[in-house]
Amino acid sequence: MSLESQLKSLSLVGDLLEHAAPANNDEWASILATQTVPASYELTKTLVFKPKTPKSQTPVPVVVIALNSSATPSSVIAKATNTKDPRLAATDLVAEFFGGIAPADVGALSVTSDNAEKIKVVLDSLIAEAKDDLIVAVHPSAAAKTAFIKAVDLAAQLNATGVEVITVNFAEAASAAPAPACTPTPKKEAAPTAATDAKIDGAALIGITVDKDLDFPGWYSQILTKGEMLDYYDVSGCYIMRPASYFVWEQIQEFFNLKIKSIGVRNSYFPMFVSSRVLEKEKDHIEGFAPEVAWVTRAGKSELEEPIAIRPTSETVMYPYYAKWIRSHRDLPLKLNQWNSVVRWEFKHPQPFLRTREFLWQEGHTAHLTFDEANTEVLQILDWYEAIYRELLAVPVIKGKKTEKEKFAGGFFTTTCEGYIPTTGRGIQGATSHCLGQNFSKMFNITVENPEGPEKPKIFAWQNSWGLSTRVIGVMVMVHSDNKGLVLPPRVAETQVVVVPVGLTAKSTPEQRKEIQDSCRKIEADLAAAGVRVTGDYRDNYSPGWKFADWELRGVPLRIEFGPQDLKKQQLIAVRRDNGAKLTFGLDTFVSSVQAELEKIQVDLYDKAKASFDGHITKADSLDKFVPALNTKNVVLAPFCGEEACEDEIKDKTARQGQEGVEVDEKAPSMGAKSLCIPFDQPELAAGTKCVGCGQPAKFHTLFGRSY
Amino acid sequence: MSLESQLKSLSLVGDLLEHAAPANNDEWASILATQTVPASYELTKTLVFKPKTPKSQTPVPVVVIALNSSATPSSVIAKATNTKDPRLAATDLVAEFFGGIAPADVGALSVTSDNAEKIKVVLDSLIAEAKDDLIVAVHPSAAAKTAFIKAVDLAAQLNATGVEVITVNFAEAASAAPAPACTPTPKKEAAPTAATDAKIDGAALIGITVDKDLDFPGWYSQILTKGEMLDYYDVSGCYIMRPASYFVWEQIQEFFNLKIKSIGVRNSYFPMFVSSRVLEKEKDHIEGFAPEVAWVTRAGKSELEEPIAIRPTSETVMYPYYAKWIRSHRDLPLKLNQWNSVVRWEFKHPQPFLRTREFLWQEGHTAHLTFDEANTEVLQILDWYEAIYRELLAVPVIKGKKTEKEKFAGGFFTTTCEGYIPTTGRGIQGATSHCLGQNFSKMFNITVENPEGPEKPKIFAWQNSWGLSTRVIGVMVMVHSDNKGLVLPPRVAETQVVVVPVGLTAKSTPEQRKEIQDSCRKIEADLAAAGVRVTGDYRDNYSPGWKFADWELRGVPLRIEFGPQDLKKQQLIAVRRDNGAKLTFGLDTFVSSVQAELEKIQVDLYDKAKASFDGHITKADSLDKFVPALNTKNVVLAPFCGEEACEDEIKDKTARQGQEGVEVDEKAPSMGAKSLCIPFDQPELAAGTKCVGCGQPAKFHTLFGRSY
Repeated sequence: MSLESQLKSLSLVGDLLEHAAPANNDEWASILATQTVPASYELTKTLVFKPKTPKSQTPVPVVVIALNSSATPSSVIAKATNTKDPRLAATDLVAEFFGGIAPADVGALSVTSDNAEKIKVVLDSLIAEAKDDLIVAVHPSAAAKTAFIKAVDLAAQLNATGVEVITVNFAEAASAAPAPACTPTPKKEAAPTAATDAKIDGAALIGITVDKDLDFPGWYSQILTKGEMLDYYDVSGCYIMRPASYFVWEQIQEFFNLKIKSIGVRNSYFPMFVSSRVLEKEKDHIEGFAPEVAWVTRAGKSELEEPIAIRPTSETVMYPYYAKWIRSHRDLPLKLNQWNSVVRWEFKHPQPFLRTREFLWQEGHTAHLTFDEANTEVLQILDWYEAIYRELLAVPVIKGKKTEKEKFAGGFFTTTCEGYIPTTGRGIQGATSHCLGQNFSKMFNITVENPEGPEKPKIFAWQNSWGLSTRVIGVMVMVHSDNKGLVLPPRVAETQVVVVPVGLTAKSTPEQRKEIQDSCRKIEADLAAAGVRVTGDYRDNYSPGWKFADWELRGVPLRIEFGPQDLKKQQLIAVRRDNGAKLTFGLDTFVSSVQAELEKIQVDLYDKAKASFDGHITKADSLDKFVPALNTKNVVLAPFCGEEACEDEIKDKTARQGQEGVEVDEKAPSMGAKSLCIPFDQPELAAGTKCVGCGQPAKFHTLFGRSY
Repeated sequence: MSLESQLKSLSLVGDLLEHAAPANNDEWASILATQTVPASYELTKTLVFKPKTPKSQTPVPVVVIALNSSATPSSVIAKATNTKDPRLAATDLVAEFFGGIAPADVGALSVTSDNAEKIKVVLDSLIAEAKDDLIVAVHPSAAAKTAFIKAVDLAAQLNATGVEVITVNFAEAASAAPAPACTPTPKKEAAPTAATDAKIDGAALIGITVDKDLDFPGWYSQILTKGEMLDYYDVSGCYIMRPASYFVWEQIQEFFNLKIKSIGVRNSYFPMFVSSRVLEKEKDHIEGFAPEVAWVTRAGKSELEEPIAIRPTSETVMYPYYAKWIRSHRDLPLKLNQWNSVVRWEFKHPQPFLRTREFLWQEGHTAHLTFDEANTEVLQILDWYEAIYRELLAVPVIKGKKTEKEKFAGGFFTTTCEGYIPTTGRGIQGATSHCLGQNFSKMFNITVENPEGPEKPKIFAWQNSWGLSTRVIGVMVMVHSDNKGLVLPPRVAETQVVVVPVGLTAKSTPEQRKEIQDSCRKIEADLAAAGVRVTGDYRDNYSPGWKFADWELRGVPLRIEFGPQDLKKQQLIAVRRDNGAKLTFGLDTFVSSVQAELEKIQVDLYDKAKASFDGHITKADSLDKFVPALNTKNVVLAPFCGEEACEDEIKDKTARQGQEGVEVDEKAPSMGAKSLCIPFDQPELAAGTKCVGCGQPAKFHTLFGRSY
C-alpha cells in the first residue's frame, strides 16, 4: 500500500492535500497506528516558534508538540530552548522550513530527516513519557486531517529523524510561572481530558496570550477567535462570521438602509454568476479583477459548456439591464443597491475581514441624467460611510479623493474614507464611492433621448457605484481592542452591559444568594426595558473574576457588579471595558446613568482613536522625511503633483530607503508609501510649492502611508 | 473565412455559443451585411408559435419574424396562418425543430433548408417590403448575439430556404382588431423608431397579453417581467430580483428575524465555499445534492489544486464548527441562522422563484440537548413559516409531516407547509423545518458530556435545520395575480396606495390643475404620515386610464382617484386592485378608511385563496378516484400506509392512468401524484381503514397531488 493510500485510510476526515505531504515523510508511514478511530485518544497540537535571531544568522525554528490540553507559554519555551523571545513563526518562515505549507498545517509528521538539522523540537513530557497504550491524534500534513499514532511511537520516530528533542513538563513549568494578570481562573470547568494540574494552564488559553504591540497579527487572530467574532475555515481565505460580528454588520445595514432609502435607493438582488462575455465587456475594469476571478466549470458531473464567473463586483452584471430598463429620461435616476457577497480569489496572504476571498458588502449602482446629480450623490454616500465609521464604529477616517493611480478601474474618479491602524501605523482604505462618469454607459449603451428634444444628441447616463464591506469590522477591532480582548463600541455591541453577581462566599446563605440574584435580574430587566442590550451571568461554576475576564475578552462595553455590600448601600458598580474606570450608580437612577455612560464610551473611543490618528499625520516637504515618519508609525501629508509616474517613484524610493534604514520585522515589512487620498480638507498650498516627489509644481496635498 | 469566424466578426457582443449554431446555416453566411455596427438599423424579434394541433398530427410551428416595434398578437397570427389558438411554443418543441436550442435563442437565421419543410414563417411586411437600404439586426443563433443583414436579403434568403413565407402587415392587422380591455393607451411616449400607426400596438405590449387560464407559464413570465418583479438573466436559471420582489423579501426578513431572535436564534454568516471532503461527509445527505453541486475549479488563470463546491445547503459547512464550539452541555442550545444564497445547478427547466440555480433563503441550524427541545423548536418554526404565508403573503398552506420517501436526505423527520396553485391544481412545497435527530451529530461528532455525570455516556446533540426561500414570492404571485397584472397583498407591497389625479381635460385651467395636484399631494402626505406606503402619479404624458392600467400591472393594492368632482363633494374614490370594487371615502376620514381597507384586502385575499384550496381537496378511498380528481385540479386526501414502495406505486399508477385518460397539454404534463404531506390536522381514521395504494392497514391520511 502506498504512503498516500495508507494515510488516506487513516484519515478521519478524507483525502490528503497532496501539496501538504512532505517529500519523504514515508519514514512515518510504518508506525501510524490504526485504520479506524480508536476508542480513546488524546488530541495534540503542533506550534512553530521563531526565537529572536540576529539578522546575520539563520533562525532555528522550535517545533512544539504537545497534548492539546497542555498550556505552552512562550516563556516556558524560551527557557527550555535557551532562546530569546520566541514568537509564533510567520507564514513565510514556516513555508521555508516545511516545504511550503501554512503554519496551521504543520503537524508532528512534518518533522522529517529532511528538516531535522535545521529545527528543534520541544516535546511535551506527557507524550515523551507516556504509557504504551496512549494513542494521540496528529495532523499528518494539513490542519483539517487527523491520523492516529501511539505516543511512544511518535516520540521514538521524532528521535529517529535526528532532530534535537527537548522534553518539557509543561504542567510543572507553567505552575511555576506566574499567570498573566488577565488570565481568568475557572472554578470547575476544564477540558475533560486534562490532568488536575493542567486545568489552570488550560484556562490560560481562554485569555489573550499575545501582546498587541509585539505580535500584532497573532494578537489580531486571537482577539477575533477568542472573542468569538470569527472562526477560521477549512477553505483558505474564507472565514466564519459568528453572531458577534454579524450583529455589527446588521447594525450597519439598518443604519445605511435608512439613509439610502431616504434618497430613493431601492434594494434588489442580482445573480452571483456572470458570463465571461459580460464580465469582460469593460476592458480596463476587468483587467483590475481578472486575476482574482473564481470560475465555475462543472455542475454535478457535467462540464459546463462555458465557464461561468462568480462576481468580483457587479458593474458588468447589472449594466446590461440598466441599458434595457432605462428607455427615457423619466427612468432616471435609477438607484439600486444590493447586500451580497462577492468573491475575489486573492493569492496574497489572507487576513480576517481585511483580505478575504469571499466577503459581504453592499454595492450601490446608480444612473443619473447629469454629472451634477451623480457628483452630489457620490459625496452624500461618502458622508454616510464616514458616519458609519464615526457614529457606529467609533473610528475616525479622512475623506478624500483617490489619485489617478489608485482610482477604481474603469471609473471617472473615486472618493474614499481612509482609516489608520495605530499599532502598525498603516493606512487602510475604509470604503469607496466612485463616480464612473459615462465610461460604462458608453460601453453598455445606457442612453436616453435628450429631454431638450429628439434632434439633440442622445445622453449617456452618468453613473456611480459605491461599496462598503465587512472590512470595517476588522478596522474597528484593530483600532480599539487591547490585550484583554475585544473592545466594542456600545452602538454595535450585541451585548452592551453584563450584570455579574459578586461578593458571595462559601459562607453566604441560600437566602443571601437568592436576594443578590433576584436584584441582579431586576437590574437586567430594568435595563432591557429601557432598550439596553443586557445579559446576566449567573453561571455557578465560575468565579466573578473569571467571568470578568470572559466578558472583557468579548468586549462588552460595561460590566455591572452587584453584591451584598451594594445592596446595603443601594448602589451598583459599573466598570468600563475601554478604560477600566469604576463608577458607582445609585439603585434608583442607574438606568439613565448606564445609558449616558454607554454614550460616553462611544464618544471617548472615537476621541481617543481620533487623537491617535491626528497625532500621526506628519507634514513633509521632502522625500527624506518620509521613511523616518513611516517608521515611527506616521502617515505623511505632502504636496504632490498628482502624476502616476511620480507616485510610482515615491513608492519605490520610500521602499528602498526603508530597507536600507532601520531593522525590519518580518511581520511588518517596510513597504513603500502609497497615496491614501487627496484629503477634501486641504491645508493651504503656498504659491510655488513643489511636489514632494518630482519637484514640479504641486497641485494639492496628498496623504501617503504604508497601507493595507 | 469560416462561417463561425464570419459570424464572430459580425457579432456585437462576443463569441457565438457553438451549440446554438444550426448545422447548415452557412447558407446564410454570404449575405450577412457588414462587419461593423451600421449607422442605423432596426431591431427585429423572432417568436415561435405552436397552433393547436390534434394529438395524432405533428404540429407545424409558425416562426414570426418582425420588427421589434411591430405588435404581433396571436389573433393576427392565427388569421394569417389559418390556424387555431397559436401560443408561444414550449421549450421541447423548439428544441425538436431547431436543433436543441432554447426559444429565446431562435432567430431569423434559425430557418434553414433543413427545417424549411416542417415550419411556416410569418414575415412582417415592414421587412418583406422594405427598401434596399434598411438594415436589420437579427440574432444569428443565440438571444444575446446580434448580426446585421439587409432586410431585402433576409426576405430573399428566407424564400430561398424553401420555407412557406406568409407576409403580414401587422400595423394594419392590429389596428383592425379591437385592443384588449386592459391595454393602456399612452398619450405621448412611444418607442422612438416606431411608425405612428405602430404606437398603440407597441403600447399593447405594456399590458399582459396572455391569459392566466390558457397559458399559465406564459402569463407567469409576463406578470413577473411586466410587473417589474423580476428580469431574466443571461445565465440560464438565474434571475434578477428587482426592487418590488426584493421588498417582499425584506418584509419577510424583518418579520422572521423578530420571531427567531425571540427564542435566542442569532444570525451569522458561513462561507459559500465547501471543500469536497466536508461536503461529502454525510453520505445520504450528499447523495441528494451531488448532481446539482456547482464546482469552482479555477481562479484567475490558475487551476485550483482541489475543486471547491458552492454550498447547496450548509449542514456540512457548519457542523464541523458546531463540533468544535460545543464542548459542554452549557453550550447548548446553539441556535444560528443565516440569510444567504445557495446554488443548486438543476438541469430541469428553470422557473422564476420556483426553481432557480441560485436562490436566496434563510437557513437555521440548531443543536439541542434533548429531543423534546429540538422537536418543540421544529414545530415552532413551522408555525412561523405558516404565519409568513398567511399574515404577509395571504397564502393558505397546510402544515404536516413529510412521508419517509419525501423527507430531507439524512434527516430524522421533515415538517412542511404545503401550498396550492389553483390555476394548475398542483401542490407546492412552501417551506420545510427538519428535525435531523442525532444523525449529523454522530457524523460530525457533536457531543457533550452527560449532565448527569461523566460516568454516563456522552450525549450526541439533537439537531434541527429549517429553511424558507424566495420561492414563497413565486407562490404568492401565482395565487393572487390576474390578467391585468400583479395582485400584491398590502403587507408586502412596496407601494400600497397610488394617488392619481383625474377629471382634468384640455379645458381645465392651470389653477384647476394646481388645485387638484395640491390636493392629491396632501392626500399622499396624510397617508405617508400615517405610515402608509404611498406614491402619487403626476406624469403629464399619460392619461389617467393608462396610469390605472400601469399601476394595476404592478399590483398596487389600492388606487385613489381624485378630481374636480371629488373636490366639490369633499371625497375621494378608492379602487381595490384585487376585486375592482370602487369605494368613496370622505376627505376628513379617508386615512383610517384606507388603512382599514388595506387590512380588509389582506384578509380577503387570504380568504379567497383559502376557499379555493379548501374547495379542491378531494377525499378518496380508492386509486380510481385519483386521476379524475387530479385532472379537475384537486389534491387528494387519502388513507395511506406510509410505505415508500407503496408511494412509488401510487405515483406510477396515477401517472399512467393520466396518460390514458384526458388529452394532455404539453405545458401541464399529467404527472403522477406525489405525497405532499401527512397533515397535522387529520380526519378521523375509522378502524380497519385500508391504505389507498396497497390495501394494507392505513396509518394516517396523507395529502397527494401533482406537485411543483
